[in-house]
Amino acid sequence: MISMQPIGYVRSFYRDTQEIPKGLGARHEVEGLLEIRPEFEPGLLDIEGFSHLYVIWAFDRSEGCNLVVTPPSDDRPHGVFATRSPRRPNPIGLTVVQLMSREGPVIGVRGIDMLDGTPILDIKPYLSNVPQERIRRGWLADAEERAGAKP
Amino acid sequence: MISMQPIGYVRSFYRDTQEIPKGLGARHEVEGLLEIRPEFEPGLLDIEGFSHLYVIWAFDRSEGCNLVVTPPSDDRPHGVFATRSPRRPNPIGLTVVQLMSREGPVIGVRGIDMLDGTPILDIKPYLSNVPQERIRRGWLADAEERAGAKP
Repeated sequence: MISMQPIGYVRSFYRDTQEIPKGLGARHEVEGLLEIRPEFEPGLLDIEGFSHLYVIWAFDRSEGCNLVVTPPSDDRPHGVFATRSPRRPNPIGLTVVQLMSREGPVIGVRGIDMLDGTPILDIKPYLSNVPQERIRRGWLADAEERAGAKP
Repeated sequence: MISMQPIGYVRSFYRDTQEIPKGLGARHEVEGLLEIRPEFEPGLLDIEGFSHLYVIWAFDRSEGCNLVVTPPSDDRPHGVFATRSPRRPNPIGLTVVQLMSREGPVIGVRGIDMLDGTPILDIKPYLSNVPQERIRRGWLADAEERAGAKP
């Protein structure tokens, strides 16, 4: 077993998972804060030079694990590792956010899809893209096509 | 504290961190395997439809933490959360790999930068890019410019 400690907490308007947009075409444009614990503030040196960050966090209010799930964006089942379902063997979430500001240990970001109080495990700089023309999105592209939704 | 269990292990040619390309212009084109534990194989259903995956893993051979580090790509210090340094408060690694094949619980991938035997904590589908023109890469872009290196 590997033990992790929160390096800080998300401050967001979302108090309940029902409030978080999900499914096809869901957009995450909401702003929020990453409140890093003061003792880790030196680790943020120069972070404001990056436009986007990876936030790795814990689904602390999700219980149990389903290896096969039917996500909100489809009516067919898929393996949990092919989805963003919270009910995973390890309750790890990953979100790309846009960095808007920083004041000491508090980072203002856009693109929050976490509940208020979510424990943050790590932050990393977003450095590069996969070439757009090489991305295939499997069942999600199929579900969008069936739904007639725009990606 | 939050406890995590390996869902599987990386099989790679790298036996020592010295062998892994680092620094400016480092490219990770090496192929390797993600050997998922057989009991989690159902969680891989439909994963082969995605061209790229996020692999979240543990730096299991890194000890301690430095909040301010001088990375191989620069001669100036930066906060650990603005770098990919292994000596982090939580020893979490994140790599985007290209999915090449799958046979049962074993996924063949390209883009490995982990040591052989590295514990895998989670796998997620790579769904979308940040618009290329909106990515800023802070100190890394500065270091590249000073070095005259191509990104």
